[in-house]
Amino acid sequence: MKTVLTYGTFDIFHVGHLRLFRRLREIGDRLIVGVSTDEFNTVKGKRSLMPYAHRAEIVAGVKYVDLVIPESSWDQKIDDVKNHAVAVFGIGDDWTGEFDFLKSYCEVVYLPRTHNVSSSSLKRLSLALDQTILERLAEAQAVLSDLLGQFKDD
Amino acid sequence: MKTVLTYGTFDIFHVGHLRLFRRLREIGDRLIVGVSTDEFNTVKGKRSLMPYAHRAEIVAGVKYVDLVIPESSWDQKIDDVKNHAVAVFGIGDDWTGEFDFLKSYCEVVYLPRTHNVSSSSLKRLSLALDQTILERLAEAQAVLSDLLGQFKDD
Repeated sequence: MKTVLTYGTFDIFHVGHLRLFRRLREIGDRLIVGVSTDEFNTVKGKRSLMPYAHRAEIVAGVKYVDLVIPESSWDQKIDDVKNHAVAVFGIGDDWTGEFDFLKSYCEVVYLPRTHNVSSSSLKRLSLALDQTILERLAEAQAVLSDLLGQFKDD
Repeated sequence: MKTVLTYGTFDIFHVGHLRLFRRLREIGDRLIVGVSTDEFNTVKGKRSLMPYAHRAEIVAGVKYVDLVIPESSWDQKIDDVKNHAVAVFGIGDDWTGEFDFLKSYCEVVYLPRTHNVSSSSLKRLSLALDQTILERLAEAQAVLSDLLGQFKDD
């Protein structure tokens, strides 16, 4: 029995998450996914659209996932690897090098991303759209403030 | 072998979709999900954030789903029921009555929604937030226009 472990927030579930799970599951016989709790996301300065309970339920509903555990701190990984007899820790290659400290306990693999859609990019797009509106609002406010200044000078 | 069939867009995959699939799968032995194509969504006046290929792949990756088929027109349902030997057509109770015409071909069930989060409500929330900004912008523009009018009167 070769157990594989990964971690993530998995907020807006997309095809990149699914493909990562599929490839991780293919490396071994059993895939454990650590889903970051809302409290841990707060520590990381992140906020998800969906609560932990929903994110965990969705991840647990994926065909390639055998077990979901909560990820609630930065330093639980070594314990998780030991407690679940993990053979391989795997994560996307945007994290390359970050988890090399686990190499004393298990194999560590960084998988290439096969897609260009991520929750982060969807959120960035949404923020960019908001930003355009906010910039226009700031512009209008600057002009208004300028005009109000002129009124005072009268 | 009791086959169950449902349809939907399943754009931003959420826990309500997952639970609907689980309950539908429990009704029978095999669940077929018709995922609406991007072209069909255009006909319906809807536009999804994620393309058909991604939505279909995610739905096919759910533990309770046995087969995904494309939904590309309003009138394919009777053929789908016949071709796949469907015993039960099931869908959320926000559609109650809408699919009674299938009762000549199979059992039709409308399932109560067990959640209050849907793609539509997430999108409505996002629009409402944008709306607040747009309203403030419109307000600023109205004041600016008023001030400009006063300048002209000078």
